[in-house]
Amino acid sequence: MKKLFNSRSSMADDMIAGFLAAWPDAAVIGKHPRVVRRRALKIGKVSLLIGNGSGHEPIAMGFVGTGLLDANVVGDVFVAPSPDLILEGIREVTGPAGAILLISRHEGDVINGRTAAMMAEDEGFSVHPLLMYDDISSAPKGQEEDRRGAAGTIFIYKILGAAAEAGLDLTALAELGAEVRDCTRTLGAALNPGISPLTGQQMFSLPEDEVFIGMGVHGEPGVGRRKLGPVRELVAFMLDALLQDRQISPGTRTLVLINGMGGCTMMELLTVFGEVAAGLAARGIPQTAPMIGSFSTTQEMAGFSISLCTPTQRMLDFWQAPHGAPLFPDLHGVGA
Amino acid sequence: MKKLFNSRSSMADDMIAGFLAAWPDAAVIGKHPRVVRRRALKIGKVSLLIGNGSGHEPIAMGFVGTGLLDANVVGDVFVAPSPDLILEGIREVTGPAGAILLISRHEGDVINGRTAAMMAEDEGFSVHPLLMYDDISSAPKGQEEDRRGAAGTIFIYKILGAAAEAGLDLTALAELGAEVRDCTRTLGAALNPGISPLTGQQMFSLPEDEVFIGMGVHGEPGVGRRKLGPVRELVAFMLDALLQDRQISPGTRTLVLINGMGGCTMMELLTVFGEVAAGLAARGIPQTAPMIGSFSTTQEMAGFSISLCTPTQRMLDFWQAPHGAPLFPDLHGVGA
Repeated sequence: MKKLFNSRSSMADDMIAGFLAAWPDAAVIGKHPRVVRRRALKIGKVSLLIGNGSGHEPIAMGFVGTGLLDANVVGDVFVAPSPDLILEGIREVTGPAGAILLISRHEGDVINGRTAAMMAEDEGFSVHPLLMYDDISSAPKGQEEDRRGAAGTIFIYKILGAAAEAGLDLTALAELGAEVRDCTRTLGAALNPGISPLTGQQMFSLPEDEVFIGMGVHGEPGVGRRKLGPVRELVAFMLDALLQDRQISPGTRTLVLINGMGGCTMMELLTVFGEVAAGLAARGIPQTAPMIGSFSTTQEMAGFSISLCTPTQRMLDFWQAPHGAPLFPDLHGVGA
Repeated sequence: MKKLFNSRSSMADDMIAGFLAAWPDAAVIGKHPRVVRRRALKIGKVSLLIGNGSGHEPIAMGFVGTGLLDANVVGDVFVAPSPDLILEGIREVTGPAGAILLISRHEGDVINGRTAAMMAEDEGFSVHPLLMYDDISSAPKGQEEDRRGAAGTIFIYKILGAAAEAGLDLTALAELGAEVRDCTRTLGAALNPGISPLTGQQMFSLPEDEVFIGMGVHGEPGVGRRKLGPVRELVAFMLDALLQDRQISPGTRTLVLINGMGGCTMMELLTVFGEVAAGLAARGIPQTAPMIGSFSTTQEMAGFSISLCTPTQRMLDFWQAPHGAPLFPDLHGVGA
């Protein structure tokens, strides 16, 4: 396995050490060395946190900071943190206003997250576990709550992060989170596998001229394969699928997130975005404030996903609000 | 070649279309479709621009915006733009205050850039071509001006961009640019090749347990190979080489840039940064305001470079100054 690390057992901890050395004003370690929390906790605000397996950086550790996550509970590579560990995170950042525990819908994350939330409730904390699911390839239309969480969950992180900073209470945040989730859809395509740091092996194999549609963030099977072809045709196919799953009326302002899975170049991601923007424009759908880059990754897997979200004005304001998270892009200062 | 594109001939243009669709408030196309310029030109300021082959994104197109580049002249993939094309860029953004034409020292870029600058002088523009070189592996100590430009050139882009915005004149900017260059050093290591979009072939081959030290941005040969081993040992070797080339005294505040070449994960880059920060700390050298990510890339090449710069207070202020470039990180708001 040709990767830059010291030892398999120290991978996550060495990475955390690097992150904290880089941005000590944004984040610090909590009482537990796997709880990365915002340095300046804000009294009285609802806290926002997530526990997740590492190996997908910059998500979620890189999103800890003012106006975004209060804490990230960092699991081993590709392994959901235990309920006990997530509970440590909840204790670390939660006050009387309560907490939203984000859970990207994958089996281990759901079980451990819900258990941790119950344990925290027993200790007197108010914790709302918010299930996030957006991947249209993982369950059919009408069974949205059976879908996996994918890169479109980033809309929830950012919008709830800004909303919590603005002072919304737990009930309002839980409602807003569900609202963002319900207006978001994601579909991904994978070209080449990444190497799992756990096994040292490629996560899948695929003929040289084919792509997987709907690959999950750990290499879970997609809905099917197709010939690669020109990117315009691939994007047209994916955009059709997204808009069949959730119609967007002409004139509806739409947020686009093009997420690279690790091994796609920025040249490719910008090209994909151009095709998505053109496809939306042809349908009379205006897009604004996009996010383009490799944010939720699966090691060096070559692939990308398209996420669409139709925000209310309030959501859009939260999406573009300034924040202090080291590895989340600046969506408000661009062009200023 | 398994990449996302429409056709080889349209690659650069399709990417530009995507970039402009994403951030129309930051950048627009100039009179020539390969001149990407800042939307709001500032009257009276010295302009800052560069022409370079594409395929290395986000550099340099993604750095166009307020407080950074006024224009990027976008060549075909891995091909320096022609003098005529660079001249178009100079005409597009240059007024009476003149222009700094950045040139990352590679043969084609130097010849074409200097020729363009002379042509522009003939037309009455004041243009200072600023040669940038920082890669210690490409020529020995004492022959710094024979070295290649590498990721450490990013310090020059940002510091001069902010300085030009602040109103420094052409002479002062030329001096400042040389000063930044002379206090910057870079060394890279490559683990796995990228695929050249020109040839569809891997750029080099390397045994499974070895790294190249000093690989250039187009896959130019490095100074040697070594066993990969734990990242701590690799970084220690590279840091020693950098500090032998240019000593940094204990107590000297240092900027660190860890640049991914495309195929390294953020997990790996953060780990590398942690080792660099620890190595500097052990020598009593404090680091601040680092930049970590894949900014100057060679397609999906797996590798990284370490750049060190010892800024004056004025340089540091410019480094952290706010800017409006879409794909340059926010170095001032982190933790705010």
